[in-house]
Amino acid sequence: MKIRIGICGYGNLGRGAEAGIAQNPDMELVAVFTRRKPVESLKINSDVPVVHVSDVEYWKDKIDVMILCGGSANDLPEQTPTFAKIFNTVDSFDTHAKIPEYFKTVDAAAVAGGKISIISIGWDPGLFSVMRLYAGAVLPSGNTYTFWGPGVSQGHSDAIRRIDGVADAIQYTIPVDEAVERVKSGKKVEFETREKHKRVCYVAVDSICGDEDKARIEKEIKEMPNYFADYDTTVNFISQDELRTNHGKLMHGGQVIHAGKTRDNNNQVIEFSLKLDSNPEFTASVLLAYARAAYRLSATGEKGARTIFDIPPILLSGRDRDDVVRDLL
Amino acid sequence: MKIRIGICGYGNLGRGAEAGIAQNPDMELVAVFTRRKPVESLKINSDVPVVHVSDVEYWKDKIDVMILCGGSANDLPEQTPTFAKIFNTVDSFDTHAKIPEYFKTVDAAAVAGGKISIISIGWDPGLFSVMRLYAGAVLPSGNTYTFWGPGVSQGHSDAIRRIDGVADAIQYTIPVDEAVERVKSGKKVEFETREKHKRVCYVAVDSICGDEDKARIEKEIKEMPNYFADYDTTVNFISQDELRTNHGKLMHGGQVIHAGKTRDNNNQVIEFSLKLDSNPEFTASVLLAYARAAYRLSATGEKGARTIFDIPPILLSGRDRDDVVRDLL
Repeated sequence: MKIRIGICGYGNLGRGAEAGIAQNPDMELVAVFTRRKPVESLKINSDVPVVHVSDVEYWKDKIDVMILCGGSANDLPEQTPTFAKIFNTVDSFDTHAKIPEYFKTVDAAAVAGGKISIISIGWDPGLFSVMRLYAGAVLPSGNTYTFWGPGVSQGHSDAIRRIDGVADAIQYTIPVDEAVERVKSGKKVEFETREKHKRVCYVAVDSICGDEDKARIEKEIKEMPNYFADYDTTVNFISQDELRTNHGKLMHGGQVIHAGKTRDNNNQVIEFSLKLDSNPEFTASVLLAYARAAYRLSATGEKGARTIFDIPPILLSGRDRDDVVRDLL
Repeated sequence: MKIRIGICGYGNLGRGAEAGIAQNPDMELVAVFTRRKPVESLKINSDVPVVHVSDVEYWKDKIDVMILCGGSANDLPEQTPTFAKIFNTVDSFDTHAKIPEYFKTVDAAAVAGGKISIISIGWDPGLFSVMRLYAGAVLPSGNTYTFWGPGVSQGHSDAIRRIDGVADAIQYTIPVDEAVERVKSGKKVEFETREKHKRVCYVAVDSICGDEDKARIEKEIKEMPNYFADYDTTVNFISQDELRTNHGKLMHGGQVIHAGKTRDNNNQVIEFSLKLDSNPEFTASVLLAYARAAYRLSATGEKGARTIFDIPPILLSGRDRDDVVRDLL
């Protein structure tokens, strides 16, 4: 019997989860849930029902794990506690400062419902988090550094798009090579924000915009607080065609580097890196592996919220345990 | 109360564990166990008793976890089942083909003794194994490649030392750059042995050896079955002084690369790499983190053998759970 998966939210992440299920022979998609009305307005790629979130109770015994693909700002804080009472859930909640509070709320709901909810899954938070844990536990005398990119930041791209005269834009976050190399050499380094990452923007302006507008847009971008002011930012103006053709992929990635020391000042460097053509499809793939773990934990009678730190890796694999030990250990 | 650690075997690995304990404030070394007689012949760096292995029973309630630092060929297959009945244990058993059988034997002993034994810990088997698991679980449509080095292979160095006329030798295993790059590009590749790694040897010969001896030694190395015949091997003759000065570190490392695909042929590459100045000290550091996990699992009443796949990462960290969630997730 396959693990019956529900997907709630059908943006980039939800579509990634839908595609990822096809790569996991032990899983099947049962339904996609949406807040849109009428639900018929949502066209999906699979031949399963599209259901309004208000009808979710009906699916209680028909879905083993619900993948929550909503956003962290508005969707998940409201949806997850509701869904966690009814289903095992996995989500990618990434509002860092609010994770402890979110964990508590979801835990209470999951315990009440007798379900498992694994929160904040993906790559950061997610695989990067667990790598920071492994590295720091193995080399306690050391420092961990996280670099993001090269990759598209949706939040920064959106911030540029809101500027008057901007037709479309893509922003790449790029780690500063010299910083990465210094960290890998094993030296402890304190960085200013602008020393670790730089920001490169590709902007298409409205057809009526002239050079004066471009100068103003560039200035507005570079001086935007929180988003750009603390970074070395490059702004490139290109056509909308070029933007679509050359900057259409939601690529991302990054690296966690931990440089530690053992006896006699020996340097020991641990590095974990990701190079992703599609950020949402990769994040969805991680969610599916942890959906399997949620299903298995729930099947043994466990309940409550869990983080990536709590999950034994063996629960992630779709392969037989003996095969895993023989082939991977 | 600290986790009371015993070390069995005082070679490079045992000395690494001894040094590593000082980096973990929640651990203390209680005793070092040896097969040497008299035990007084073993000088250690810590102010704890050196005990003959035959007296180990006396320490049953005085040690929480025994780190088994013996070799996989002769020591561990005999020692671990004996020790696992008396103590929680962690070991670095790395005879790959025999792991399933070893697991069964150790499991039976640990269950009988009501203890936890975590087997085959280190970096390969060990951290590399668990990275292969994570990567394959997250991207099931993909291929995993492991490269070792640049690093010193003790087994290959020893093999050269046994050749007539060789005074001392060090062998480096080096991954072939082109192979690493091909794998990272996301293409599925089948490699011949010699396409993945090359072997570089530094050899000091006995003072009576002339050019003819060197030619013979080089030929014997390059044609040695299993060790060198299947590889592109370079032999450099240097003085014993130079060997000691420039090739004294037991450096090692390597990388696990998993190249997978998601929808629309998007490449997703996961990479985990280690650059280690000291292989035994790093391996010992991993053993200590898993010793903490063994102690905690045992404290909850669990028993039996475990692999690295079975251990929830949170059990490895010496830090408070709330701090870990706040700082690392």
